[in-house]
Amino acid sequence: MRKLETVAALRTHLQPLSRAGKRIGFVPTMGALHEGHRSLMRAARKECEIVVASIFVNPTQFGPGEDFEKYPRPLEKDLAACREEGVDVVFVPEVGEIYPPGAVTRVSVARLTEGLCGRHRPGHFDGVTTVVAKLFNIVQPDKAYFGQKDAQQAAVIRQMVRDLIWPIQIVVCPTVREGDGLAMSSRNAYLSPEQRRQALCLSKALHWAQGQIETGRGDVQKITAAMREQIEAAGPCEIDYIEVVDAETLEPKTSAVGRCLVALAVRIGPARLIDNVLVDAGGAGR
Amino acid sequence: MRKLETVAALRTHLQPLSRAGKRIGFVPTMGALHEGHRSLMRAARKECEIVVASIFVNPTQFGPGEDFEKYPRPLEKDLAACREEGVDVVFVPEVGEIYPPGAVTRVSVARLTEGLCGRHRPGHFDGVTTVVAKLFNIVQPDKAYFGQKDAQQAAVIRQMVRDLIWPIQIVVCPTVREGDGLAMSSRNAYLSPEQRRQALCLSKALHWAQGQIETGRGDVQKITAAMREQIEAAGPCEIDYIEVVDAETLEPKTSAVGRCLVALAVRIGPARLIDNVLVDAGGAGR
Repeated sequence: MRKLETVAALRTHLQPLSRAGKRIGFVPTMGALHEGHRSLMRAARKECEIVVASIFVNPTQFGPGEDFEKYPRPLEKDLAACREEGVDVVFVPEVGEIYPPGAVTRVSVARLTEGLCGRHRPGHFDGVTTVVAKLFNIVQPDKAYFGQKDAQQAAVIRQMVRDLIWPIQIVVCPTVREGDGLAMSSRNAYLSPEQRRQALCLSKALHWAQGQIETGRGDVQKITAAMREQIEAAGPCEIDYIEVVDAETLEPKTSAVGRCLVALAVRIGPARLIDNVLVDAGGAGR
Repeated sequence: MRKLETVAALRTHLQPLSRAGKRIGFVPTMGALHEGHRSLMRAARKECEIVVASIFVNPTQFGPGEDFEKYPRPLEKDLAACREEGVDVVFVPEVGEIYPPGAVTRVSVARLTEGLCGRHRPGHFDGVTTVVAKLFNIVQPDKAYFGQKDAQQAAVIRQMVRDLIWPIQIVVCPTVREGDGLAMSSRNAYLSPEQRRQALCLSKALHWAQGQIETGRGDVQKITAAMREQIEAAGPCEIDYIEVVDAETLEPKTSAVGRCLVALAVRIGPARLIDNVLVDAGGAGR
């Protein structure tokens, strides 16, 4: 496995492989790798001849007061994980390599970024789309892999690639969960043992909502109110949102019909946790 | 010469050439081709193995009340010009090919787009950068060619490519002028014979300013005031701006030292004409 730190080195390494017709699979990450990231790497390994992962804690997707400084950066452990998953090239750039002084260009996706996390983290998705655009131009992959856990991010990137007509296939892999159901996240590391137990209420509430919708009880107001109660009963927390939206457009729904995304963001202690389930409720709205 | 109308057809045609290591030169145009465009094609022809030109009147770079509808579209004449200049592939997409329904992604460059034409044509440069981003992703050129006549556009594209780390070299070719000095422009076709004679005042004023600066008379206030007088003396017109700015940053200068761009936009009859000269004034500010 190669660890490369500059755009120039990465390009020099990848260009001949790309010219030779090798398919490049790309897994962009912020490091602090867990089973979710590893599942993306394994999918890329299966489908592509060259697997490139990037580890870059992107400053522009963190708002003021968010956890950019304390975001975990266990580089040696991350490199070992990449090696274990058969990654060919790990790209680990410095901030100045991605954001040279004087950079003033931004890629932004409207509409899809307005609700859910976008409403609570202003500027976050502009940071995501801009850095992913840069990474796509640097790596020039055939396929890029994202996790369904970050459902809005995946939808936004898909839209960006479609709109800007990038010749890249976006693959979204299922959320990977701990044995008890908690969605894997680098931010789970912020939780105390007690908060960790409390956080289980999120996947439980989502699972409950899924059951409701699948059995035809699709009143969104009722579902989200009940989820709120369940989550608040589990312990002290701050709910950013609990919503049922269209799985493609992310527009809010009043009735859970068609392909729905039930999504939430909840602050428990120092961690802002997000999770979601995709439910196909059948009926109208398909 | 191939004329291709869809992204899919263009990609199918170009991918094997690119894989084979052929260098692709790209000349994006809105058609109504004149000697300025042809000079870009000749530069591309000289430097690249494959020359791709696009003809696409991009709706999003026209403001409300601008000349999108009446912009000249002499397609057969344009195709003949491309053929004469040895273009290999002309890409002539429909609007829906470039802007599929529901497209919501925008590429925007801050700062450089705030002054000059950007101040008078709100949204214009977002339209330019977004369409050029799409065309770059479709064509994936090694080099792309722009004219110095659209100096701000060239600076903005250069910045976009640098910031988003596109592996594309931007080549800016000198302004091509009519025998009497008028900068070539597709919009010159809007001028009556009398307005055509009047329009000569623009290049004359720029040439005069260049002489002033080169001989050390660099007081920007004085220069632009005199240019305004000269241009207004030539006939009825509406001056959008006459400015002396830094050639790289496009920031206004009070004293013409270093590399300066003297730029103007003036409405004569139905035509909004732009022109500029680059002057290296030596001295401080280099």
